[in-house]
Amino acid sequence: MKEIIEPRVLKGFRDYLPQDEIARRELMEKLERTFRSYGFVPIDTPVLEYAEILLGKGGGETDKQVFRFQDNGGRDVALRFDLTVPFARFMAEHADELYLPFKRYHIAKAWRGENTQRGRYREFIQCDFDIVGTDTASADADIILLIGDALSGLGVGDFTVRINHRGVFNRLLESAGLREKSAAVLRAVDKLEKLGEGEVGRALAAEIGADLVPRVLDFIAKGEDFESTLGRMESLAGGPSEDSARLRAIWRCVEEAGFAGKMVLDPSITRGLDYYTGVVFETSLDAMPEIGSICSGGRYDELASLYTTRRLPGVGSSIGLDRLLAALDHLGKAGKRSGYSQVLVLDMDEGLEASYHRIARGLRAAGIAAEVFPERKKIAQQFAFAERKGIPLAVILGSEEAAKGVAQLRDLLRRESVELGFEGGDFSAVVAEAARLLQGRE
Amino acid sequence: MKEIIEPRVLKGFRDYLPQDEIARRELMEKLERTFRSYGFVPIDTPVLEYAEILLGKGGGETDKQVFRFQDNGGRDVALRFDLTVPFARFMAEHADELYLPFKRYHIAKAWRGENTQRGRYREFIQCDFDIVGTDTASADADIILLIGDALSGLGVGDFTVRINHRGVFNRLLESAGLREKSAAVLRAVDKLEKLGEGEVGRALAAEIGADLVPRVLDFIAKGEDFESTLGRMESLAGGPSEDSARLRAIWRCVEEAGFAGKMVLDPSITRGLDYYTGVVFETSLDAMPEIGSICSGGRYDELASLYTTRRLPGVGSSIGLDRLLAALDHLGKAGKRSGYSQVLVLDMDEGLEASYHRIARGLRAAGIAAEVFPERKKIAQQFAFAERKGIPLAVILGSEEAAKGVAQLRDLLRRESVELGFEGGDFSAVVAEAARLLQGRE
Repeated sequence: MKEIIEPRVLKGFRDYLPQDEIARRELMEKLERTFRSYGFVPIDTPVLEYAEILLGKGGGETDKQVFRFQDNGGRDVALRFDLTVPFARFMAEHADELYLPFKRYHIAKAWRGENTQRGRYREFIQCDFDIVGTDTASADADIILLIGDALSGLGVGDFTVRINHRGVFNRLLESAGLREKSAAVLRAVDKLEKLGEGEVGRALAAEIGADLVPRVLDFIAKGEDFESTLGRMESLAGGPSEDSARLRAIWRCVEEAGFAGKMVLDPSITRGLDYYTGVVFETSLDAMPEIGSICSGGRYDELASLYTTRRLPGVGSSIGLDRLLAALDHLGKAGKRSGYSQVLVLDMDEGLEASYHRIARGLRAAGIAAEVFPERKKIAQQFAFAERKGIPLAVILGSEEAAKGVAQLRDLLRRESVELGFEGGDFSAVVAEAARLLQGRE
Repeated sequence: MKEIIEPRVLKGFRDYLPQDEIARRELMEKLERTFRSYGFVPIDTPVLEYAEILLGKGGGETDKQVFRFQDNGGRDVALRFDLTVPFARFMAEHADELYLPFKRYHIAKAWRGENTQRGRYREFIQCDFDIVGTDTASADADIILLIGDALSGLGVGDFTVRINHRGVFNRLLESAGLREKSAAVLRAVDKLEKLGEGEVGRALAAEIGADLVPRVLDFIAKGEDFESTLGRMESLAGGPSEDSARLRAIWRCVEEAGFAGKMVLDPSITRGLDYYTGVVFETSLDAMPEIGSICSGGRYDELASLYTTRRLPGVGSSIGLDRLLAALDHLGKAGKRSGYSQVLVLDMDEGLEASYHRIARGLRAAGIAAEVFPERKKIAQQFAFAERKGIPLAVILGSEEAAKGVAQLRDLLRRESVELGFEGGDFSAVVAEAARLLQGRE
């Protein structure tokens, strides 16, 4: 007896069956339409790169999260763990072939050996968009406006983009003599949402002494409106600066472009990474703040300094596709589509297969997705197939009908049929009636 | 001084810059539309699988073409080298969750450590589509009709789908007592196109003896029309059979559905793999036969016998995206689009950025892709940017214009501008004129 290999995927990996894959693709296609409408263009990079490129010289030796190995040519290679590092390498390599400022989007897979107990997957799709080669409020605002438009079309309800500026925060630390402690302060502040002011205050006191805590807590408190919050931040951070002026300019762009209602200035947002140097932002769904930020990012001074001496400042963001899909699912807004066909041509009798394909081709020529059931099974089974695939109409042409020169078009939801004539292989009456029945349906 | 890591990709891998990536995505999107119009649904599987799943038990130990390694958990894993094996595993695992016959498409990357000197890449996109769970002429014809419709919309000109049936070929071998020699015969016959009849005849003589060569050569010769070719094949292969009847039934479906002009019966097509058991086919471009088959496939008895005792017969095909792209390029039909924007809103003067974003949002709301140039540069530089990105229209709003309450809409190809009034942030005259100018343009 032949031994069977148990069909299974690796821990932390998963298959996408049609309904989930269709929902995921619909989401990606919607986002892509928004990116394109803003002038962003797609690029692609290899999933496998030199480990040195992805992890830096000597860096990441012990990084268990990275899928790293020797290829058959003895090269030290790794699967990309995000799209940012490959993009930095890409810009260093191709900046001269591109036009700057360069707006790109990239929706593709990345891999990390995450602890799967936390519900994380080791294979996931990243969705990044950046404007590189310029450092202006207009570019910062463009990214925030794009986030607004991208999320507005998805059915996730209201959302809030919370913005801040790392430079203003750094000025606070500097003017309070806390520059050395900045990592510890950022770490504590980052937990405000999760732990609350009391807990964060205690953590801060342990790091910077109780005296300075009120100043930091005062700084990160949310205010009433943009101008009063920013005014308080400025006064605690040593006065107005080019960084606070930048925040004002971004605010004005976004507000005048009609999007201010969904943006708030939140001085507790810092985005842990050292990478960001200017504006930073996070986005939460008003209906589901607990899932965390679904779209984060900020401005950076040096995208590609590991690979080039050329300065490439930029601003960008990443949409958390899996979180968005989970949110859509939770809100009952996830696509439940299980297929694309609008008409199923049933297989009723031998010798009529060619007619079935002819009918289907006629439907497709009229822009109607149609499929031929490819084998003779009981009509109930064929109807059940249509139902599982969400196909609303069926064409029934058996030898009796064929002899009479008619075909039946059946509305599977209303359970009503209409008989339509055909002559000499011309099924245009069927096509026209199908088009009429489908009009106005999704 | 900081050490720079040289930005580079691995041998056999490549980046896709916007123009190439846009062309590739346009091709994939067109193919996807055709798949969907036939009722095919997308699935996705992990790029990384257990090596045992991809290569079979103990198999492929020495396969240098596969990217295979131990992950951090000590698992023997590999990057998929095609989409067929993962699909077989997928069907064995999920058949009960799906509806059969199951029509799926999958467009995704795969990896092989190919010899890059032959111009092959180690990372490439596969595009597969299959109907699994049925064994009928109607399903076979469906795949061939789909190939026809998919290729017709691409601008590659005329093409020919050459079909044959492995069963009829096997009957020839059997009736000639050549069953033991079938691998050698198939190998020789497969080279007919490349080497010609004389060379193939000599290769065959060495394997099966000179006596039997004429019979094989007679069998694989192309005929005048379908019926006379099939008649000759039948008489050489011991008479009509269910396999030749299948070919006739497929032919009839395809012909009556209006596609016969692009299909020929070619008894020399065998598709080397043992995998195929029924109809087999290859597709060549009439203008570029030298690039080889751009779409091949066939029927198989057992998709997933490695992973399940359940019988899953099917028929499927794979489109060679890279070959198609090369052909489109060679024929001057490749997409040359370098971006999606239709309007560039120039950055003319400080303090007007908010208006620029307002104009762009208004254009987008009217379905016009628009981008804001995000920094003040010389107008000539901004025009050059528009030209490189292929943007046909520009909006020019400097402080002088703003004071007068007008904006200029410039047709960058015709080098003509028109002045349009606006009031209180209402730029609808600009939007309307842009829509008018863009009408009828690509």
